[in-house]
Amino acid sequence: MLHDPNRVYVFDTTLRDGEQVPGCQLTTPEKIDIARELEILGVDIIEAGFPVSSPGDFMSVVEISKAVKEPTVCALTRANKMDIDVAVESLKYAKRPRIHTGIGSSDMHIKHKFNSTREEILERAVEAVKYAKKSVEDIEFYAEDAGRADVVYLAQMVEAVIAAGATVVNIPDTNGYCLPDQYGAKIKYLKENVKNIDKAIISVHCHNDLGLATANSIAGLQNGARQIEGTINGIGERAGNTAIEEVVMILKTHATLGLHTNINSRNFYEMSRMISSQMRMPVQPNKAIVGGNAFAHSSGIHQDGFLKMRENYEIIRPEDVGFPSASIVLTARSGRHALKFHLERLGHKLDKDELYDAYKRFLTLADVKLDINDDDLQQLMAYKLVKN
Amino acid sequence: MLHDPNRVYVFDTTLRDGEQVPGCQLTTPEKIDIARELEILGVDIIEAGFPVSSPGDFMSVVEISKAVKEPTVCALTRANKMDIDVAVESLKYAKRPRIHTGIGSSDMHIKHKFNSTREEILERAVEAVKYAKKSVEDIEFYAEDAGRADVVYLAQMVEAVIAAGATVVNIPDTNGYCLPDQYGAKIKYLKENVKNIDKAIISVHCHNDLGLATANSIAGLQNGARQIEGTINGIGERAGNTAIEEVVMILKTHATLGLHTNINSRNFYEMSRMISSQMRMPVQPNKAIVGGNAFAHSSGIHQDGFLKMRENYEIIRPEDVGFPSASIVLTARSGRHALKFHLERLGHKLDKDELYDAYKRFLTLADVKLDINDDDLQQLMAYKLVKN
Repeated sequence: MLHDPNRVYVFDTTLRDGEQVPGCQLTTPEKIDIARELEILGVDIIEAGFPVSSPGDFMSVVEISKAVKEPTVCALTRANKMDIDVAVESLKYAKRPRIHTGIGSSDMHIKHKFNSTREEILERAVEAVKYAKKSVEDIEFYAEDAGRADVVYLAQMVEAVIAAGATVVNIPDTNGYCLPDQYGAKIKYLKENVKNIDKAIISVHCHNDLGLATANSIAGLQNGARQIEGTINGIGERAGNTAIEEVVMILKTHATLGLHTNINSRNFYEMSRMISSQMRMPVQPNKAIVGGNAFAHSSGIHQDGFLKMRENYEIIRPEDVGFPSASIVLTARSGRHALKFHLERLGHKLDKDELYDAYKRFLTLADVKLDINDDDLQQLMAYKLVKN
Repeated sequence: MLHDPNRVYVFDTTLRDGEQVPGCQLTTPEKIDIARELEILGVDIIEAGFPVSSPGDFMSVVEISKAVKEPTVCALTRANKMDIDVAVESLKYAKRPRIHTGIGSSDMHIKHKFNSTREEILERAVEAVKYAKKSVEDIEFYAEDAGRADVVYLAQMVEAVIAAGATVVNIPDTNGYCLPDQYGAKIKYLKENVKNIDKAIISVHCHNDLGLATANSIAGLQNGARQIEGTINGIGERAGNTAIEEVVMILKTHATLGLHTNINSRNFYEMSRMISSQMRMPVQPNKAIVGGNAFAHSSGIHQDGFLKMRENYEIIRPEDVGFPSASIVLTARSGRHALKFHLERLGHKLDKDELYDAYKRFLTLADVKLDINDDDLQQLMAYKLVKN
């Protein structure tokens, strides 16, 4: 089924897991716009909605199915016939339809959410996959709260749903609970103990409640998963989902992992801004990869090293993610080298003594003025001319 | 030196590594306010500034030294006598002073930043520690860019600076390059191969360029580090530093790690808001632990499970980090159980048919209105009364 064992499939759920966040709701035309951009970005699967949940969601899946060509379009369901029937209906125009069905797998969910037993839940899981398989070939099964599930039971469930026809098995850390080594070990266990595991792709779906979604996703990939689920900017329920841009850039930066995706990473910056503005979810300046400061070098020690050789402080080139350009901003923490660099850029060539003098005046100004821009630098030099 | 082998020391560098970010500069009185709050939060070490870098930074270290009692106050230097002299002077009022000195340890930094050799750099490192030790007992050494340094050379450097008097050895992943397993392995190597390692505390200082700062810090702690460096909200150079609140809550949530800190986690929310507002650095709603949505449950499946038993979808209680309270917001993705819950809260007891009816009207409204608040729900019920 997998032609290239090192290819990682990217499953974007910005329009489903992302869109269900308070304040992030989109109209169908907005969703179509985003889906088209996701296609250009190169995602493999677009989760377009949860059709049974509302008439608007149903229509969005229909319209996105019509609008995109390359990516698989996926619709979410619970493990029941009505959900699946509605999802099948919503996908009728999709060139590559996928049903995403599933049920809780942790004892906590089985007991306190479904008031059921392991045996009964396993049966419902298998039935749902079999039922969906009658209408759609590509079936992804999610074992909800797998992060806290007993791994032996989880393996039974995974084996059973693959036997029932699941092509992808999604092992969600629904509550963002796992540590990377725990989550990696879970994926490894499934890879080694589920007899028919090679008939399906293992998918990782992590949440960021403890700030570990990206690390957990990477741990999953290191242990045999080959699909990663996430959203642009890591938006999603509570502390959000895995940020797709982080995982993709880790795979690019760490070539020794030997894994690659189909993503055009140069589109990340623009995609990030589009999602942030349309879904009204600000991206903090210190967000990895796409934050406003992600490539800004400001401290003196860093600016000095950066100006000598950018690789001293830069592991990703800003242009690789479509970032406008690496920026150096002067502040009271900036060093002499950075000041010299910017003054020369503005046409001021200074000898050592002049620089010493200018730097002293710069520091006095920077302590009160915070950020120093080009105008400030010009005035700093004008002052010097007057004084001399 | 360590009385409790499971105690993790928290080193806050919000006022140094955080404050050097463009736009985040603070006045000395603002820094004093924050330092006092950090003391109440229970951090063990406050890095108060880089005294030689500007007169304002020098004064801040002096004033913070006077203002706090319990935490160690730390001043940053490069590995030279002038920096160290100025730092020693700035710390004269500190009850527990610490000098943080260091130099590059990766070949890239040694060659392209210092234009030097491994031998010469090692010598400068040792000299700086010995010089600082004459004035201050507590010396932390940082091996800059250790994340990309050759581990055998790094081990030599660490051993030499401990022999020279360093009490803490900081192994920074300056560029946020490492994967958690790589960073963990580096700490493990030092723990196992540096003869005098038990005479010092290993500190982890990670950056978030790939979204892995928190995971790398945890990997360091799992392999023997006992000090974690970071900032509130993860602010800092570029994509920022490790978010202290994430590491602390991971240690609390994963009791099996057997590690603990002195932090009063109930102060996190307030601390986060203070730093965000004073340093003008927004916290994105999907930020782990302290983001506005961190405890908001909005999807139907989740709300249903949450209302049955909160542990189904909540691994941290919001009150444990001082969060006002977990909130359920109704949207088109909300389920019947959530609607019922909120209608009952507003005084409307509905039987099954009434709920079915109300839910249909709710979905129609939610598809156009996005977020549904209490007023909307009251109107929804008024409409029903009129119709009947």
